[in-house]
Amino acid sequence: MAKQIRKLNVAMIGYGFMGRAHSNAFLQVGHFFDLPYELKLKAMCGRNRAAVEAMAAQWGWEEAQTDWQSVVKRKDIDVVDICAPNHPHAQIAIAAAEAGKIVLCEKPLAMNVAEARQMANAARSLPNLVWFNYRRVPAIALAKELVEQGRVGKPYHYRATYLQSWGADPELPGAWRFRKAEAGSGAMGDLLSHSLDLALVLNGAVIEVTSLMQTFTPNREVDDAVLALTRFANGSIGTFEATRFAIGCRNRNYFEIHGAEGAIRFDLEDLNRLEVFDRGDAVEIQGSHNVLVTGPGHPYTSHFWPPGHIIGYEHTFIATLADFLNTLAKNQQFHPSFDDAVGVQELLEAVETSARTGKWTKVSADDATVAAIQ
Amino acid sequence: MAKQIRKLNVAMIGYGFMGRAHSNAFLQVGHFFDLPYELKLKAMCGRNRAAVEAMAAQWGWEEAQTDWQSVVKRKDIDVVDICAPNHPHAQIAIAAAEAGKIVLCEKPLAMNVAEARQMANAARSLPNLVWFNYRRVPAIALAKELVEQGRVGKPYHYRATYLQSWGADPELPGAWRFRKAEAGSGAMGDLLSHSLDLALVLNGAVIEVTSLMQTFTPNREVDDAVLALTRFANGSIGTFEATRFAIGCRNRNYFEIHGAEGAIRFDLEDLNRLEVFDRGDAVEIQGSHNVLVTGPGHPYTSHFWPPGHIIGYEHTFIATLADFLNTLAKNQQFHPSFDDAVGVQELLEAVETSARTGKWTKVSADDATVAAIQ
Amino acid sequence: MAKQIRKLNVAMIGYGFMGRAHSNAFLQVGHFFDLPYELKLKAMCGRNRAAVEAMAAQWGWEEAQTDWQSVVKRKDIDVVDICAPNHPHAQIAIAAAEAGKIVLCEKPLAMNVAEARQMANAARSLPNLVWFNYRRVPAIALAKELVEQGRVGKPYHYRATYLQSWGADPELPGAWRFRKAEAGSGAMGDLLSHSLDLALVLNGAVIEVTSLMQTFTPNREVDDAVLALTRFANGSIGTFEATRFAIGCRNRNYFEIHGAEGAIRFDLEDLNRLEVFDRGDAVEIQGSHNVLVTGPGHPYTSHFWPPGHIIGYEHTFIATLADFLNTLAKNQQFHPSFDDAVGVQELLEAVETSARTGKWTKVSADDATVAAIQ
Amino acid sequence: MAKQIRKLNVAMIGYGFMGRAHSNAFLQVGHFFDLPYELKLKAMCGRNRAAVEAMAAQWGWEEAQTDWQSVVKRKDIDVVDICAPNHPHAQIAIAAAEAGKIVLCEKPLAMNVAEARQMANAARSLPNLVWFNYRRVPAIALAKELVEQGRVGKPYHYRATYLQSWGADPELPGAWRFRKAEAGSGAMGDLLSHSLDLALVLNGAVIEVTSLMQTFTPNREVDDAVLALTRFANGSIGTFEATRFAIGCRNRNYFEIHGAEGAIRFDLEDLNRLEVFDRGDAVEIQGSHNVLVTGPGHPYTSHFWPPGHIIGYEHTFIATLADFLNTLAKNQQFHPSFDDAVGVQELLEAVETSARTGKWTKVSADDATVAAIQ
Repeated sequence: MAKQIRKLNVAMIGYGFMGRAHSNAFLQVGHFFDLPYELKLKAMCGRNRAAVEAMAAQWGWEEAQTDWQSVVKRKDIDVVDICAPNHPHAQIAIAAAEAGKIVLCEKPLAMNVAEARQMANAARSLPNLVWFNYRRVPAIALAKELVEQGRVGKPYHYRATYLQSWGADPELPGAWRFRKAEAGSGAMGDLLSHSLDLALVLNGAVIEVTSLMQTFTPNREVDDAVLALTRFANGSIGTFEATRFAIGCRNRNYFEIHGAEGAIRFDLEDLNRLEVFDRGDAVEIQGSHNVLVTGPGHPYTSHFWPPGHIIGYEHTFIATLADFLNTLAKNQQFHPSFDDAVGVQELLEAVETSARTGKWTKVSADDATVAAIQ
Repeated sequence: MAKQIRKLNVAMIGYGFMGRAHSNAFLQVGHFFDLPYELKLKAMCGRNRAAVEAMAAQWGWEEAQTDWQSVVKRKDIDVVDICAPNHPHAQIAIAAAEAGKIVLCEKPLAMNVAEARQMANAARSLPNLVWFNYRRVPAIALAKELVEQGRVGKPYHYRATYLQSWGADPELPGAWRFRKAEAGSGAMGDLLSHSLDLALVLNGAVIEVTSLMQTFTPNREVDDAVLALTRFANGSIGTFEATRFAIGCRNRNYFEIHGAEGAIRFDLEDLNRLEVFDRGDAVEIQGSHNVLVTGPGHPYTSHFWPPGHIIGYEHTFIATLADFLNTLAKNQQFHPSFDDAVGVQELLEAVETSARTGKWTKVSADDATVAAIQ
Repeated sequence: MAKQIRKLNVAMIGYGFMGRAHSNAFLQVGHFFDLPYELKLKAMCGRNRAAVEAMAAQWGWEEAQTDWQSVVKRKDIDVVDICAPNHPHAQIAIAAAEAGKIVLCEKPLAMNVAEARQMANAARSLPNLVWFNYRRVPAIALAKELVEQGRVGKPYHYRATYLQSWGADPELPGAWRFRKAEAGSGAMGDLLSHSLDLALVLNGAVIEVTSLMQTFTPNREVDDAVLALTRFANGSIGTFEATRFAIGCRNRNYFEIHGAEGAIRFDLEDLNRLEVFDRGDAVEIQGSHNVLVTGPGHPYTSHFWPPGHIIGYEHTFIATLADFLNTLAKNQQFHPSFDDAVGVQELLEAVETSARTGKWTKVSADDATVAAIQ
Repeated sequence: MAKQIRKLNVAMIGYGFMGRAHSNAFLQVGHFFDLPYELKLKAMCGRNRAAVEAMAAQWGWEEAQTDWQSVVKRKDIDVVDICAPNHPHAQIAIAAAEAGKIVLCEKPLAMNVAEARQMANAARSLPNLVWFNYRRVPAIALAKELVEQGRVGKPYHYRATYLQSWGADPELPGAWRFRKAEAGSGAMGDLLSHSLDLALVLNGAVIEVTSLMQTFTPNREVDDAVLALTRFANGSIGTFEATRFAIGCRNRNYFEIHGAEGAIRFDLEDLNRLEVFDRGDAVEIQGSHNVLVTGPGHPYTSHFWPPGHIIGYEHTFIATLADFLNTLAKNQQFHPSFDDAVGVQELLEAVETSARTGKWTKVSADDATVAAIQ
């Protein structure tokens, strides 16, 4: 019996750096994964017509559009993918949800918790996805498996840094990222959100937080750096640091977990590696295993290249999309969903509150969030 | 004035691991590079119909064919890309050249020097390419630039290892790679050929060589490992080691150069890095620079992702193809060409001769090769 | 003219791990450095006669004693070195100071700020030293030089972790370290004190702090781990983590500084290395310099082995002692002094207060401390 | 019953860099190890009276002498330790042996095989030692244990480099090392001898060799670099490279072994580490273990500092001496002995012969050597 392939027409709202990464994922997912869907790149949508047309042509979108309101309602659109700046996320996502579309949205989901909850409510009965793509780095997916297998054991410490340096550059790219009205926040929403999402996945809920937000640049509206200490529900404690002022670091999205049975270390600049300490090793050869996570036996890797042939940044989007589509075909709940992203947003809000008040701040998760965390 | 885009119809002969890597390159090159050509994936060709059809469908080739002879002659084919096992390379390439096609061929080009020269002669007046893709690893292209800028200075030492371990695995993939009639050789043609190609590019001609070839596995027809010492024309000396029995190593294609002014180190398992020692640094901070070669200021990287976002194995094919097409548009000679690959083949022959005779063996380059080396 | 060598008779109070490290320093300093003093290992003093006698014999002390009160008053003793548990530090140091001795004391100096200030007052007119030995790791001394040369520039971030794992071991060494009455605190006084001392030296005064102290082990009296965020007087911000529960880490005393012009990274498990990022490097070879700090051009290294021959842990004590004796001969103030250690103690107290109150806590430095910080 | 301690009076012939390292070992061995001997540093002997006197004073030798012939015959000398340049090694060692002394000698033992055999014959009935100190690097001793436990399994590959850069420096230290009459050879005797000794210990006898010796510097009498390929008796194959022209490397004494069950990697610049690959690990966490070889469970480390506190270069001499003295007390044969060093010398001679003739050269081991190899 032939496999049934359903077609899905995609519209993308936004066309910047993330527009390229998402376009690539839509085009490539079917080459690396056997899927029950065929994706059609129908319409790319943005405010600047010339720019959208150029990008749409480069990446093979059928149409270039400038009016997202009409696009998200079109009958011939099945999937709306949002990679615009943060500010309009809610408006677009809610409109797409009201039109009954499958909704995919870049992180951070929203400008604040209230918006995020509205979006999650609007999309709850629809398939949805938030692009916390780093969950599908094979090495991080392996980390999750190892945690679940008990190789880390009772957790003591979680440590995450997300270190970039471009914020200190006088010739700045990505100006919208520095405007509060469009970005909401700086390093916090852009970088810390990734670290917190991974922490929730790998180490569970955070109970309370104390933090510090810092803007080094005069007149800049958003935070250049944010630091936080946390208490996790599982009894472990954490440190977090996200910054655009870590001279010498391009994209050091790093985390480390120490538990009673082992430890795990990851650095995005070396995304095909995972360091794993296993207390069960013979004592004389105990030491971090330097694991090249390109298979065999590693998540996703059989879909890409043979062992020893590394993958790049873009494959994290491809693997995310593949999982989403397979989940969709089985009518199952995909993660990270909008509800999961609400959990991250609640944490970001607690970080912001603590930074403002100077006090330890409890994370106020509503029931939907608690139920959703996976 | 609108840019003129010429269409090129591609036929691929072969459909294994390299078939995937090449298909990906043909599909992706236009997304990352502005090109004067539009590539159409016309026909994929292989012996096993069912397998070819599945692969062709997965990667979007218009047709699946099983008779390469007829395919390479077709009027509607502009480019013939060969990624079959090594044995039929010559036959296919010469037929394609005789039909006036642009010919691309996987490495090693041929089963021996005689074949390689025939192929080079047949294709000399046509655009041609040999897939020594590692020249276009951004870190290796940077190494070449640094050598040319004089940052290494008068060279003393060249050291290369290409270490894999799958040959020792009892459940072996890629059986044709162990049959002499199809593969010609083992680690030598498969791995050492890459190392020698890079050595020629980065350090110039080799004058003579002494070597040792070893087959650890009983009844295996080809070499499991090969070692060599070399003298280079520039006065430096080299060591080479290629093996499929380096337990613990997946794909350690490594080289290191030491010259009077600096040193360079590269490892393919970490392909976004280059280590650079610069004797000109202030003495108290002299030490290898750990360079994340993702831009700014690095070859190819502006075409891919922003600085700090790494690329994978497949981008080396994409960059190779982009350079080839740009060279084609300008009617210039592309490297590595068939003539360049003859140079590698002459070296491999000297290695084999030395291993058989136990003597230092001069590399006998004919004039065409000498002229071609770049 | 012959160099005049003065003899100094040393008494050591304590004989554990630190007793070995100090004994080694007293014996070795004259072999590696030309000094104006000759040290005589006169008396080792401890509570357990048999143990002291064994240790004294092993390391060549003339006498083994059990009554420190009488030893510190002896006419024939010039130097009193204290490496007993933390609790009696003050009592011994003050008695030695009252007897007019040169006083050396292990860190942390005292059980609290009040005690530390008393000790500093008692010893102010006498030569004194606190064994924050890591300041004299050649790589850290180099870091200090680079900071002073401006190679790091305006500082943004300071990040320190001191990660050990032995606290989680059920068969515990060093039991006194877990009793509050003897140790005062756990990871805080033992490990964080080192990190804070280095931070003060490399990045200047800390203004305020928020922190978290954690005891994972039921019924343990002291902290197993401590986390802190800090604001420095120079405008930079910091994260600190000290723990005895970082499974997989033996002695990762690590720090990293990011400033406008560069960055510096150090790890004690690799104590002969310093990673240095220099924004002034040509853009294409920007990357952390992996500096093997064994000379030439590095602090202390000319006294030890030729470049490339690494030193171990004990040389940090030797270099500290050499500097102290040279300073003594010139009648200059040595650092780290008791006054410097008061500064560390004030910081530790702020950390403890913050952990108790859950609030950001200002560091209350008295004038003597402020004057002393160097 | 009290342990009986015998006194041994030591005379040292030579006083340079090695004189310091040996003096340190004689002084320190009793602090770190419980020994049945007490060493007395009786006489240091060298040609330049002022220099010897200064060195003797610095390191606590009782006398400074200039006539080694009379010193080695003295009744009150038990041990003669030779760290003069290579040329007089034989003469001194034979004289000391004839006087019935315990003889210790720096490597390379002799100027050639003939001399080495004479020395071995002369000293065979006496306790003797050759300072191939790197065997007692804890990480290398651990490597030996792992090989013996079968963790590497049937060996395939042995790869060693000894990379230094000072030979290329125009302001050269150690001028005797460049004169053929005094040094015998350059990188070969100085560096390759270490690599070959370790290869013999870790991987067994070498059967044949092909090599290349190179002098980059005009008018220099000895080799600046030497390369070799080898066949081992156990069926594995090897590459060796020793050079003083590896710009960027201070002291990279490196080796790597790949066998059917695992792999081992070591680098002297990181002497407290051993990388160990174990094919028996669960497939998803296979990767080189980064082992910090400071205990627990590691050779020698319990004698030095607690786990995580690294040792330096000089401890390799201390551990060698401790083993020697313990062996002496038990009347057992110590390794590396003069006979072992003859084995290295035979290999060096084969390397030299091959470099001269351009042919594969069998290693001609005499029976004593074969019997001695351990």
